[in-house]
Amino acid sequence: MKIKTSSDYMSSLQSINPVIYYKGEKIKDVTLHPATAPHVRAAAMTYALASQAEHHDLATATSHLTGRKISRFTHVHQNVEDLLKKVKLLRILGQKTGTCFQRCVGFDGINAVYSVVYEVDEKLGTDYLERFKQWLTYIQDENLMVVGAMTDPKGDRSKNPSEQPDPDQFVRVVERRNDGIVVRGAKLHMTGAVNSHEILIMPTMAMDEKSKDYAFVGAIPVDAPGIIMVFGRQAGDDRRDKLETIDVGKPRFGSVGGEAMIIFDDVFIPNERVFLDGETEFTASIVYRFAAHHRSNYGACKTGLMDVLTGAVSYLCQIQGAAKGSHVRDKVTEMIHLSETLYSSSIACSAEGVPTESGAYMVDTMLANVCKQNVTRFHFEVARLAVDLAGGFIATLPSEHDLKSDEVGHLVKKYFTGVADIPVEERIKIGRLIEAMTGGTALVESMHGAGSPQAQRIMIFREGDLTKKVSLAKALAGIPSVKPKQEAS
Amino acid sequence: MKIKTSSDYMSSLQSINPVIYYKGEKIKDVTLHPATAPHVRAAAMTYALASQAEHHDLATATSHLTGRKISRFTHVHQNVEDLLKKVKLLRILGQKTGTCFQRCVGFDGINAVYSVVYEVDEKLGTDYLERFKQWLTYIQDENLMVVGAMTDPKGDRSKNPSEQPDPDQFVRVVERRNDGIVVRGAKLHMTGAVNSHEILIMPTMAMDEKSKDYAFVGAIPVDAPGIIMVFGRQAGDDRRDKLETIDVGKPRFGSVGGEAMIIFDDVFIPNERVFLDGETEFTASIVYRFAAHHRSNYGACKTGLMDVLTGAVSYLCQIQGAAKGSHVRDKVTEMIHLSETLYSSSIACSAEGVPTESGAYMVDTMLANVCKQNVTRFHFEVARLAVDLAGGFIATLPSEHDLKSDEVGHLVKKYFTGVADIPVEERIKIGRLIEAMTGGTALVESMHGAGSPQAQRIMIFREGDLTKKVSLAKALAGIPSVKPKQEAS
Amino acid sequence: MKIKTSSDYMSSLQSINPVIYYKGEKIKDVTLHPATAPHVRAAAMTYALASQAEHHDLATATSHLTGRKISRFTHVHQNVEDLLKKVKLLRILGQKTGTCFQRCVGFDGINAVYSVVYEVDEKLGTDYLERFKQWLTYIQDENLMVVGAMTDPKGDRSKNPSEQPDPDQFVRVVERRNDGIVVRGAKLHMTGAVNSHEILIMPTMAMDEKSKDYAFVGAIPVDAPGIIMVFGRQAGDDRRDKLETIDVGKPRFGSVGGEAMIIFDDVFIPNERVFLDGETEFTASIVYRFAAHHRSNYGACKTGLMDVLTGAVSYLCQIQGAAKGSHVRDKVTEMIHLSETLYSSSIACSAEGVPTESGAYMVDTMLANVCKQNVTRFHFEVARLAVDLAGGFIATLPSEHDLKSDEVGHLVKKYFTGVADIPVEERIKIGRLIEAMTGGTALVESMHGAGSPQAQRIMIFREGDLTKKVSLAKALAGIPSVKPKQEAS
Amino acid sequence: MKIKTSSDYMSSLQSINPVIYYKGEKIKDVTLHPATAPHVRAAAMTYALASQAEHHDLATATSHLTGRKISRFTHVHQNVEDLLKKVKLLRILGQKTGTCFQRCVGFDGINAVYSVVYEVDEKLGTDYLERFKQWLTYIQDENLMVVGAMTDPKGDRSKNPSEQPDPDQFVRVVERRNDGIVVRGAKLHMTGAVNSHEILIMPTMAMDEKSKDYAFVGAIPVDAPGIIMVFGRQAGDDRRDKLETIDVGKPRFGSVGGEAMIIFDDVFIPNERVFLDGETEFTASIVYRFAAHHRSNYGACKTGLMDVLTGAVSYLCQIQGAAKGSHVRDKVTEMIHLSETLYSSSIACSAEGVPTESGAYMVDTMLANVCKQNVTRFHFEVARLAVDLAGGFIATLPSEHDLKSDEVGHLVKKYFTGVADIPVEERIKIGRLIEAMTGGTALVESMHGAGSPQAQRIMIFREGDLTKKVSLAKALAGIPSVKPKQEAS
Repeated sequence: MKIKTSSDYMSSLQSINPVIYYKGEKIKDVTLHPATAPHVRAAAMTYALASQAEHHDLATATSHLTGRKISRFTHVHQNVEDLLKKVKLLRILGQKTGTCFQRCVGFDGINAVYSVVYEVDEKLGTDYLERFKQWLTYIQDENLMVVGAMTDPKGDRSKNPSEQPDPDQFVRVVERRNDGIVVRGAKLHMTGAVNSHEILIMPTMAMDEKSKDYAFVGAIPVDAPGIIMVFGRQAGDDRRDKLETIDVGKPRFGSVGGEAMIIFDDVFIPNERVFLDGETEFTASIVYRFAAHHRSNYGACKTGLMDVLTGAVSYLCQIQGAAKGSHVRDKVTEMIHLSETLYSSSIACSAEGVPTESGAYMVDTMLANVCKQNVTRFHFEVARLAVDLAGGFIATLPSEHDLKSDEVGHLVKKYFTGVADIPVEERIKIGRLIEAMTGGTALVESMHGAGSPQAQRIMIFREGDLTKKVSLAKALAGIPSVKPKQEAS
Repeated sequence: MKIKTSSDYMSSLQSINPVIYYKGEKIKDVTLHPATAPHVRAAAMTYALASQAEHHDLATATSHLTGRKISRFTHVHQNVEDLLKKVKLLRILGQKTGTCFQRCVGFDGINAVYSVVYEVDEKLGTDYLERFKQWLTYIQDENLMVVGAMTDPKGDRSKNPSEQPDPDQFVRVVERRNDGIVVRGAKLHMTGAVNSHEILIMPTMAMDEKSKDYAFVGAIPVDAPGIIMVFGRQAGDDRRDKLETIDVGKPRFGSVGGEAMIIFDDVFIPNERVFLDGETEFTASIVYRFAAHHRSNYGACKTGLMDVLTGAVSYLCQIQGAAKGSHVRDKVTEMIHLSETLYSSSIACSAEGVPTESGAYMVDTMLANVCKQNVTRFHFEVARLAVDLAGGFIATLPSEHDLKSDEVGHLVKKYFTGVADIPVEERIKIGRLIEAMTGGTALVESMHGAGSPQAQRIMIFREGDLTKKVSLAKALAGIPSVKPKQEAS
Repeated sequence: MKIKTSSDYMSSLQSINPVIYYKGEKIKDVTLHPATAPHVRAAAMTYALASQAEHHDLATATSHLTGRKISRFTHVHQNVEDLLKKVKLLRILGQKTGTCFQRCVGFDGINAVYSVVYEVDEKLGTDYLERFKQWLTYIQDENLMVVGAMTDPKGDRSKNPSEQPDPDQFVRVVERRNDGIVVRGAKLHMTGAVNSHEILIMPTMAMDEKSKDYAFVGAIPVDAPGIIMVFGRQAGDDRRDKLETIDVGKPRFGSVGGEAMIIFDDVFIPNERVFLDGETEFTASIVYRFAAHHRSNYGACKTGLMDVLTGAVSYLCQIQGAAKGSHVRDKVTEMIHLSETLYSSSIACSAEGVPTESGAYMVDTMLANVCKQNVTRFHFEVARLAVDLAGGFIATLPSEHDLKSDEVGHLVKKYFTGVADIPVEERIKIGRLIEAMTGGTALVESMHGAGSPQAQRIMIFREGDLTKKVSLAKALAGIPSVKPKQEAS
Repeated sequence: MKIKTSSDYMSSLQSINPVIYYKGEKIKDVTLHPATAPHVRAAAMTYALASQAEHHDLATATSHLTGRKISRFTHVHQNVEDLLKKVKLLRILGQKTGTCFQRCVGFDGINAVYSVVYEVDEKLGTDYLERFKQWLTYIQDENLMVVGAMTDPKGDRSKNPSEQPDPDQFVRVVERRNDGIVVRGAKLHMTGAVNSHEILIMPTMAMDEKSKDYAFVGAIPVDAPGIIMVFGRQAGDDRRDKLETIDVGKPRFGSVGGEAMIIFDDVFIPNERVFLDGETEFTASIVYRFAAHHRSNYGACKTGLMDVLTGAVSYLCQIQGAAKGSHVRDKVTEMIHLSETLYSSSIACSAEGVPTESGAYMVDTMLANVCKQNVTRFHFEVARLAVDLAGGFIATLPSEHDLKSDEVGHLVKKYFTGVADIPVEERIKIGRLIEAMTGGTALVESMHGAGSPQAQRIMIFREGDLTKKVSLAKALAGIPSVKPKQEAS
């Protein structure tokens, strides 16, 4: 691993030159700009953990390609143990950053593409796997951060890619050259994009025969010509931009991953970095496997966030002299219960993992979808309970400027003092932390990251094997079996 | 009514001089300052409606004191019809502002104090009602906005007012003079405080014998000597402060009411404006009646907000070409269902209203508490559904500066275009509206405004008449009746 | 009112001769047969209340046809007060019987048909209203119990009446004679059918032009030639059939209404009892109005049942020495909260009632549907909470034969004794009551009575006025209004 | 394994003579009596599976005591794989019986006692483990069914064992002899008791010093002198007693496990079968470990039941021509989602299993409690959804006697016919299956089996490590660490 530490990572980002816009202006250095620095620090934690003895075993792995020690975030899962270690690593990172640390999306992209292109080659005699292994060895050895780019704008959602008035609403190949392809379009909501080194472009959904130009996979450095990123707004970004220290809630880290749209304004990808091109029948597998891996992660990292939130309200109730109330205890119990229910599914879909043809391991698809579906419910409910226990002051608290003001600072302090032995600043800081972690952006990410709720429901229904369930019911009801065609629902 | 129109109201605010701090600096003119102006505009809507023929009947009433036409927000409810008209008025105001319009808190304070001091006078031979009527006639004739000030800081919540290390954690009388009283302390979360004319101070809970100094009611202009307000932060306040026009979501109105802490730094209240002083046994009634009225309102104004949110996601789904999906329709149905369930309780507690001894009408206490309890659940769930249907872009959308940028504006527009015939700006504006209405502050207010969830549960249990319910069950189970003492739970 | 008392009602049932099958055999006398007697007693309570001074005002009304005092259950609502009184009456009846008292379905049928046939006559010049008034006067004067018969078997639900392989899956006119019509088919789930005097047949859904023969309304005595009823099973019916006294839970009343299928095996209905015949365009109104009235009732009668259940678990917790637990108190609070939320909607849809063209009053359709929708959720949740608090013994308790046994009775008593001063029999009786009220049939009825959940959702969406809501959102987002056609969702 | 097959098991039960009362009379042969035979058949399935090649690996294990092949239900878990295989076995048994198969309770008792008495011996130098191994070898070799007996009557729950007016409200040692102990008391809700061979008696909760006589563990055959069982009632037991074949829903199996109270009327237990006697400080461990194992199982067997229920409603919707409806599909998806969420926790707490000092493996306590807590919610919700989709007919369907009646059978059939090609009997059978699986007893068992909901919440709070969570929150909020004593909640 070339990039070994947080500061190696920072330096590496300073040595590349992606085009990034934010609030109408270009960002020069993502490690310094107040809007992006908190996200850089969160991603840096994935590097930091690998060099800490305590976390080394979880944060690293041995490459099945080279036998060398690599970051787990660049690893292809080789067994159930790999899947379980990943889950534990993600929960710890969630606990330590209280936010998205952004490296899963590339990690899951790598695992999805690896196992599918193996099958493409097997079936069609292509050489995509070899290309991919070469690129992946480079990623592993350098220890680069990869953004997995899947979500297209989609334009009018009642229409397929080829039916859109604007054909660029899905990223597509606009030119095929001898040495590579030229692509155009955009990917939205790209977590960690502005502080990644590489982009792994994947199709956004199962493609039909008419959509060959949309059915490709390729990798490209983030500062390749034609790539433009626009960094999105988040709740509370202005407070960070103004370098406030208390009102941001989490002084070192962001609310969520830091998302950007990536625009591909006719970007050239050389052949050795093209891992699929036109094999439409394999796009569904890439999407489903990426989605299953990604959904399985949410039950781990978000549990880490909920651990923080549970601790925060617990401490706040102590500060306010309310921790002994039976309803407080009951709501804290509920927060823990929901968190651990989520975590269960992450563990379970890993424990039930299975090998693909390539030898790479996949999580259980049903349980991974169940996991993410619960995230879209429970994170909101945990936030609701946190808001309940925190009290109204998280929405009405004066600013840190008032707290520090000569005229009114002493009054703000006087009237926000809780139990005698805890400084009032701690109450305010914890209040701001809860505000930051229960506000808009954090929850939106839990709803839509790794696919919107309805996407999981479709998979859950599909994986539910109703034919078998119907036959179980008939057996118990004393109904003789009938032909399978009548059993389908 | 002296103040008749929105602009009368604006002018009236410019003619007074309250001391208001915000982000460490003084606010000179609340009608112009970007942080407070949106809230002023929302409150102004309560004046505007009274002068519109369409809403005149709901927005005004006839004073039972003077027979003159007054704003409904200064009226003492005389019958069930008054209570029902109030509910309908609040829903319309919620629909038109999408936020808190702030006048309920004074309105409910007036109604609570009126009916209780009648009973104080009856029992103790005091003359509080006469004083109160005189003040109220002034309020009605001038059509002033009153902030009802109830919530104290409370310090260590495991301790009573008299046990606190700092005796000022509840507002109290620190000096009694011949001509009035001097009070010290603070009231938190004061909705509409910075753009009100008068403050009606009420005790925050039932007081025991030791807490006589905390058991008073008084009214005072917002710019009386010794009053200092500190205006709190809200999600998105920086966007408003920077005069953004799209990213604020609601260009004309705020996210919530605009709350301030009001500090009483030894404020003198003359006797004619003191409406209770030391009669501790009546404090519970003031709190419960105020709470019941205030809780009943939430099912109306918040339904108005949910109407807006339902419309917003509905339109957004149209723009994205997704409105026909069965799951979209089902979630919109659920949003409506929850909204109307809330509204039911507001209507019901009004329809079941009863006269107090004074002739003023009270809502049904049980149903009013049930109403607010559901707000603390359903507003979050409606927001969750809105976030689900809106899609992830509300958390990752580039800023309006990027949208208007020469370099990337055309790309942002290109890739956020939905169905062909609706301008992309509409999608973005609706997205920002949903962001503003589902983010932190708005929901915190629904949770804690008019009392935290546990406060309602205590009332619901208390009003539940378990003795009667036990006897119903015993009758049906064939158990002979026993002495009442065994029936209590 | 000819039938004035419970015993008048019993006698009246003994004087008619409906054909009723149950468990393969004919029931001779429904007032004596153990399967039907509990339901007869519950319906009798509607007569009993009318003769009790305490309930007289709620239980009776003054006929707008004759000016005579009548049972409220035969009344056409003349104003909002009538609607509100009905709600209160239903809750009391629910509290006193702990079950369905069965008279609503005819009551609501009368109100739906009355207001619709007025409009038919107005539009088409028919004389249905006159016929209906004559029949209704007879019902009112005699004080008869009417079963409103709406739900058809429907066969294959993906097909319309006219597409069914068996045309009798919806009740239809098979012959038209000079003096009347002959009808064939069946109505399912007919609550109170076996102890009613008259059947009011109504169409089950909006009918199209091809379904003229299915679009009729008529009334017929329950013992008319060709009518056959088959009384359905309920949870616990065997215990009642064996005349057990403790294990039935409610010794005097049934679990639910007592439902029968009514088969019309070519039944003649004379013209003067035919109130619609072929006017398909009015069927939707009959169904919607009946449904709205009926749905509005569920929030009242079921609240009565939940009151009983809340009392039962409360008492049981006292007996077991557990009533002081904070989680017990919290769950009881939740049971009350959900009950009163339901009740709110019943009150609200009545308070918002509006006159039809005929002068008869309708409940608010939206709120009535919201009300029933919540019943389908909350009754289950209240039952779940009751089961939680009751403890596992309600599913494992030995039978009353063991309790009374010489060999083991003393041991059963010894080991089911709770706190010292309450007889063990009371614990067992209350346990059986809870078992009876939380088991299968009672909850199924709350789910499907007055229409399945999806039926309410369709109405809620339809009544939701999305066009208006979209325009509210656009106004707040600063989007200029556009042509209405683009606003529809 | 001496008992190898279902019929071996049946014969073995016929060779013993427990004293069993039911409905006031003695049961002679539990394999023949209609009340108990369905439960015997369910337990027999655990024997049957062991002899089927397909299930052999899951249903058997290799004894760590003897190296011999044994039933998994008599095995002490030796590793995570054992825990995972158990989970899979339980789901299959749930699918095949649709009910409780009763062997877990003894299984879990064996595992709890084994690991705890190892620790007792280590600490106190006793020889309990040797005694226990000897007994367990006998159980394994014979392949006996053991009922784990834990739940005491508890009398007045606000009092400890030693404070009860009747000291027998918890099972206790009433006499100590040289060769053994004599015990008195009762155990309630004993699943599978009447068709087990042996009883393993355990204390019901943590005992204090004063409760030495209550702190014992012992094993005894079910037909030992002084043991009297009273078999409890269940919903639908009368239908089974009358040998109905359709209306019972599940012709071969019961609704739940078949619970009995076991009365110990001064029962002698010889020393070699006494595994704890007075070591009060170890009672908590026995209870917690038993509870954790038992709670972990519920997410597996109940998922099996929900699989059946999902299949049943799916098929019913096909029969009624409704399977294509989007709301049907959505509700079926929800049923699957909730089922698999439960299953996740069973898998997860097993995958996270850890060795005890004895080498026996324990499930993860937190996740096992989370698992059971969700059962108490989701089984009700799945049942509610099933009732929703099934339609009202499951509560109003005529009896099978009517279906078979010469007079009305053809009419019942005619009007319950669904889509053309499926016999009406199948609709009725599936309806009855759903009725049986959603009615009272089945759900009560999911609520209270393995401990009531509050018992899990106490464990979840206790295992939640709030001190750590508080420190995570403080770190992120930028608060310096403080002394641990201030962190406790």
